[in-house]
Amino acid sequence: MTEPMYFEDFAVGQVTEAGPVTVSESDIIEFGKQFDPQPMHVDPAVAAAVTGGLIASGWHTASLTMRLLVTGRHYQPAPGTVGLGFESLKWLKPVRPGDTLRLRVELLAVRASTSKPGWGIITNKMTTLNQHGEPVQEMKSSAIVPMRNK
Amino acid sequence: MTEPMYFEDFAVGQVTEAGPVTVSESDIIEFGKQFDPQPMHVDPAVAAAVTGGLIASGWHTASLTMRLLVTGRHYQPAPGTVGLGFESLKWLKPVRPGDTLRLRVELLAVRASTSKPGWGIITNKMTTLNQHGEPVQEMKSSAIVPMRNK
Repeated sequence: MTEPMYFEDFAVGQVTEAGPVTVSESDIIEFGKQFDPQPMHVDPAVAAAVTGGLIASGWHTASLTMRLLVTGRHYQPAPGTVGLGFESLKWLKPVRPGDTLRLRVELLAVRASTSKPGWGIITNKMTTLNQHGEPVQEMKSSAIVPMRNK
Repeated sequence: MTEPMYFEDFAVGQVTEAGPVTVSESDIIEFGKQFDPQPMHVDPAVAAAVTGGLIASGWHTASLTMRLLVTGRHYQPAPGTVGLGFESLKWLKPVRPGDTLRLRVELLAVRASTSKPGWGIITNKMTTLNQHGEPVQEMKSSAIVPMRNK
């Protein structure tokens, strides 16, 4: 773990990667039963006919993406850093049993907060990729980050 | 289960509710360990100091919202109905052990598809509320829905 990252440490275009994590058939079914019990997530026979086999709930992919972000991040956020929300959550390709996912985070924007002096807003594009390098999920996220020199 | 709902059956302003579901401390910790292992989701002692006690991962709330949507919906989507994605996912208040959530879905927009004749797009606002009626999560979702009379 490196030193905590403050607003001054971020720059547009920075790219970090995290992962991988592999998804099993039982992971997909277990998540589906608990949170998204539609046939394509929990019933291999129906899924075979409808979607060419089981596919993971999009919320499973989103949750795994969070896992990659939290466990794989290369930096320690400065104290006070808080996520502000997510925009444009899109599922681009199905995630299937045995797929291996990784996360690419690209820093899109860095600006000082207009309402909170001493703080800034960073915006990231988060792309979740499968083992073929194909994007399976995309979203934008923003966070408020303290400045080192307030 | 009623008859499948086609494009013609939707109208702006329609509101449906689903739920409730109650979240336990062990649910929060289990989800956190699997997908979002930050102290405020998995470590009651640290969480007590930092966030006044354990709070659920936002992705846990989102996944529970999907559960409410799928298991509680009052209608059967017509065959072919597919979600297109989510916008503006915001977590407005912490979800804590013992909280009971329900979902309110409000139909914001209904329009014929310009690119796919015989199909339409519906847009919903989905608000997840706690037992005090306070919104804990908000997002917009859209889906493509077949017309009954193509």
